[in-house]
Amino acid sequence: MDISHIEHIGIAVKSIADSLPYYEGVLGLKCYNIEEVADQKVKTAFFKVGQTKLELLEPTSADSTIAKFIEKRGEGIHHLAFAVPEVAGALAEAGSKGVQLIDPSPRRGAEGLQIAFLHPKSTGSVLTELCQ
Amino acid sequence: MDISHIEHIGIAVKSIADSLPYYEGVLGLKCYNIEEVADQKVKTAFFKVGQTKLELLEPTSADSTIAKFIEKRGEGIHHLAFAVPEVAGALAEAGSKGVQLIDPSPRRGAEGLQIAFLHPKSTGSVLTELCQ
Repeated sequence: MDISHIEHIGIAVKSIADSLPYYEGVLGLKCYNIEEVADQKVKTAFFKVGQTKLELLEPTSADSTIAKFIEKRGEGIHHLAFAVPEVAGALAEAGSKGVQLIDPSPRRGAEGLQIAFLHPKSTGSVLTELCQ
Repeated sequence: MDISHIEHIGIAVKSIADSLPYYEGVLGLKCYNIEEVADQKVKTAFFKVGQTKLELLEPTSADSTIAKFIEKRGEGIHHLAFAVPEVAGALAEAGSKGVQLIDPSPRRGAEGLQIAFLHPKSTGSVLTELCQ
């Protein structure tokens, strides 16, 4: 797989508004975009840190996977996303090497990117996203 | 605080040897260094992904904080490290803004870097390291 960099790090938060004083006020990062991803039932806030984005994920519904994650494990890092030139090819390669796939084919994620998730059972318990 | 990039992402693993087939064989990353950090009771393996390193952390003792983390939460992402030009200054700034500090002053970490940790209570449950 040809990974160029870490595209983003997804962080589950109860409230983006309550998190901004830390990310902006303490760390000095700047939130450049907030958008809702309806099919994931989350609101996302983006910050750029060098090549990588931090993506805060706030659940917009009690049955979103992020709400369930927070209920079970509390707030914190939720997933890691690698940038690859082509998600479909990287996904096929991972599948052929025995990695369990959450998304058998790429789908549309936040910021209009093509994305797919690998199952944490196959990735040392790190929920892993491939992004194009 | 003047953060330039994400220096590394620390990932707790039971065994570096058992993790290499995924990181090298599936993701195609190359482990360029394995070292022991005696005072943290861990063995670390480093991979470069663009500007950022992945740092696998394997406990070398049952009483290391990484062993306790794995016992409590399982393997997975352990911490996030931001690169700053000067840790002491960034730490003082964080402290002055009410962030709880694990390390009140910088200490020596893996790869000879000056490092200090912020407490996850003040950082939205993301164990956060500052690196110089």
